[in-house]
Amino acid sequence: MSVFTAAADQSLCTPLPVLGEDVTVPLVTGGEVTYAALDYAASAPALQRVWDDVAAYAPYYGSVHRGAGYLSQLSTDLFENSRATVAEFLGCRADDQVIFTRSTTDSLNLLAAVVPADCQVFVYETEHHASLLPWRDARVTYLNAPRTPAQAVETLERALADRDPYGPALVCVTGASNVTGELWPVKELAAAAHAHGARIVLDAAQLAPHHPVDIAELDVDWVAFSGHKLYAPFGSGVLAGRADWLQDAEPYLAGGGASRKVARRTDGGVDVEWHSTAARHEAGSPNVIGVYSIASACKALTEAGFDRLVAREQQLVTRVREGLAEVPQVKVLSLFGDDAPRVGVISFVVEGWNSSHFAAALSAEYGIGVRDGLFCAHPLVRTLLGSDPQDPGECGAPEAEPGELPQSRTDSTGGTPLLNAIRVSFGAGTPDEHIERFVRAVKELVSKGAQWKYRTEDGRCVPDRGAAQL
Amino acid sequence: MSVFTAAADQSLCTPLPVLGEDVTVPLVTGGEVTYAALDYAASAPALQRVWDDVAAYAPYYGSVHRGAGYLSQLSTDLFENSRATVAEFLGCRADDQVIFTRSTTDSLNLLAAVVPADCQVFVYETEHHASLLPWRDARVTYLNAPRTPAQAVETLERALADRDPYGPALVCVTGASNVTGELWPVKELAAAAHAHGARIVLDAAQLAPHHPVDIAELDVDWVAFSGHKLYAPFGSGVLAGRADWLQDAEPYLAGGGASRKVARRTDGGVDVEWHSTAARHEAGSPNVIGVYSIASACKALTEAGFDRLVAREQQLVTRVREGLAEVPQVKVLSLFGDDAPRVGVISFVVEGWNSSHFAAALSAEYGIGVRDGLFCAHPLVRTLLGSDPQDPGECGAPEAEPGELPQSRTDSTGGTPLLNAIRVSFGAGTPDEHIERFVRAVKELVSKGAQWKYRTEDGRCVPDRGAAQL
Repeated sequence: MSVFTAAADQSLCTPLPVLGEDVTVPLVTGGEVTYAALDYAASAPALQRVWDDVAAYAPYYGSVHRGAGYLSQLSTDLFENSRATVAEFLGCRADDQVIFTRSTTDSLNLLAAVVPADCQVFVYETEHHASLLPWRDARVTYLNAPRTPAQAVETLERALADRDPYGPALVCVTGASNVTGELWPVKELAAAAHAHGARIVLDAAQLAPHHPVDIAELDVDWVAFSGHKLYAPFGSGVLAGRADWLQDAEPYLAGGGASRKVARRTDGGVDVEWHSTAARHEAGSPNVIGVYSIASACKALTEAGFDRLVAREQQLVTRVREGLAEVPQVKVLSLFGDDAPRVGVISFVVEGWNSSHFAAALSAEYGIGVRDGLFCAHPLVRTLLGSDPQDPGECGAPEAEPGELPQSRTDSTGGTPLLNAIRVSFGAGTPDEHIERFVRAVKELVSKGAQWKYRTEDGRCVPDRGAAQL
Repeated sequence: MSVFTAAADQSLCTPLPVLGEDVTVPLVTGGEVTYAALDYAASAPALQRVWDDVAAYAPYYGSVHRGAGYLSQLSTDLFENSRATVAEFLGCRADDQVIFTRSTTDSLNLLAAVVPADCQVFVYETEHHASLLPWRDARVTYLNAPRTPAQAVETLERALADRDPYGPALVCVTGASNVTGELWPVKELAAAAHAHGARIVLDAAQLAPHHPVDIAELDVDWVAFSGHKLYAPFGSGVLAGRADWLQDAEPYLAGGGASRKVARRTDGGVDVEWHSTAARHEAGSPNVIGVYSIASACKALTEAGFDRLVAREQQLVTRVREGLAEVPQVKVLSLFGDDAPRVGVISFVVEGWNSSHFAAALSAEYGIGVRDGLFCAHPLVRTLLGSDPQDPGECGAPEAEPGELPQSRTDSTGGTPLLNAIRVSFGAGTPDEHIERFVRAVKELVSKGAQWKYRTEDGRCVPDRGAAQL
């Protein structure tokens, strides 16, 4: 679990330049302020380096694979070299495949589509929905939330040992929680899985942007992550790992690129020979810019000194946690306790506050962008909030019916149970000032209250401009 | 079929500015030349306007849907407004859904995943693999290649009338062939489908970039297209149309965004309530930049006067066809004959030439990027080439085994049957000079031969630098 030890003696670095760091936003209280993007766990800004690489490449964009032109061949090389860069970034084994998807969600749905028919899947109820829900055709065992990393390992070992029949099995686990930021004991879980004849996939959506991931050293079978959380928000993601199940399964998408040979049969049908390499699951024209942006981000993090970035982020984590600890009304959500190592993702609730109103005030009165809700991890957040974990909550989507939010959440003046939380998250591009502003804002809002009232309008919490200013 | 009539009296316009129009590439014969991108049917360059819009937005990129920050709300609005822009561009009906995918291939795989279990699918063997292959769980009838648009309608009517049982049915048809560029009688096919109680999806990958598509006027049930062929190569595509099958089916991807409520059950399982709107099939963080780029392209084409762009492209089509007609050794591939209306996509073979070598010479000696192969439409190209349609061919993918291409293709010095073709394709960004250069190059190559020998190396046809220059 001491994943941060190696970084402890590294000298610190400055934040990496990101797009939008000079963007100013209006405050409801008047004036403008630079935007503090503290929702990295949802989507991080693009690294300036990533943007510069994309912008330099864009005029050279061409069709890949079978184009005969110079730019097609350049683009094909760039695409396949990006695959090699990602393999290196993840420490892939020689026979691992790197498949480009659109996101972690897509990567895990792809893996779910290729698990053998008799495979049993084991997943903690604490996972993000992207890890929790894709296993529709498999027999799934949901493991209860552990309260220590050791308990996570014990829970898994027991479940794997007791599985009936003792056949193919897959464990899906996050590297770092998208709610608490806490690290999961991935290496230990991988050892447990393998000791019991199971395989394991690491959901590294929240780990890869904050900490080096080495697939061989962790000894996991697959790793999934997203570009948009890794400072490369151009629509691509990755599934990397063992080739066998991938090669043996039907293609994830059927179409050109995945098909090697197609011919009519004499009986009127069609015979298809599919590729057996990564192309098997990458049908359609690939998102070359998205893929290249991920490779660019991998290089940028490596070249900047990922250990130094990690060490600096840990200082920010400490600053946030110390700041929040000074506010008795703030309760930080944690599964593994105060001492658990964690990345720059911290969720909390504020006594007497509706979390949506609190998040709205951080935005409208301080120019700080955080997230409120259940973070697409409903069972985990319910567990952490102490509310009934069977009580359904909603998850970020555009069409939440107007009027629904107030019904399911307490008003800041009310006394009903807290039903959602606030999440602050940050990373390689976060300047100290954003963290200082956030800590100050939390203290001011709690001690002095918001300057405006907030209300929910079309599913969005906004300053109530019709109300008298408080 | 007279889709171009409306444009005939429009005044012509200049090409729209695109990225890369000033890029120069080296010639094997010495010197550099501006790159002539004539592989639009695979991927078109980004419109300068699209790039400018993306670049202007990129610093404001933020997490969408549940982010409380200013940029999150701005990005959410931009994302949902893009959906409205695409709906308008396609002439969607009030109750149609616009779902963002990664490509046409993805869109058709999504539709394939939601067809009712007892649905029969009817698809011409002439389709691109993206339309031909996704219907894996359905009963598929492959229709033989028609030789006139009227025959296409007759073939479909007969097949639909004869279907047994006479249950739910779906027709999948291209709007414009990715091989011949010829237009299919979409409106007539839609009428035939509906008259026989079937639905129809239009693969508009090759139509939408070259001609306005009006879903209501064509009376098709769904339309699919890709951003990367519509001057917006940022990894997004569209499936638009009727909501009912989409709402009734399991989500295409399982994960956050698609899930409205998730809760553990007392029996240990998990209950999920899925969204019923577009979000149902858009799990995971959306590709906001990709989606916005498509909306930007839709606006740019509309504002430039799509009819005028079409009229200009038709002049380029005429110029290419007239130029090729002057070379007796060139055979243009056509399903519906010389008079059939077509978009800027033209495939041909050259007597005595290996198509790959011809395409390589166009690139190396003239800086022209075209495509050679079977264009992910193997049965169609085999039919058009007059070779055995059951003879399998390979399709654009990176890992074609070295040495495979020479075995399956005739050398330019040999006399074996032609097994692949050359495709030239162009559109709104193509300057007259590219077309003139292409016609001149074809004439020179045929009359004088190439200046270099070409050989296949790692699946790519390249000048044979080890050989004496011819």
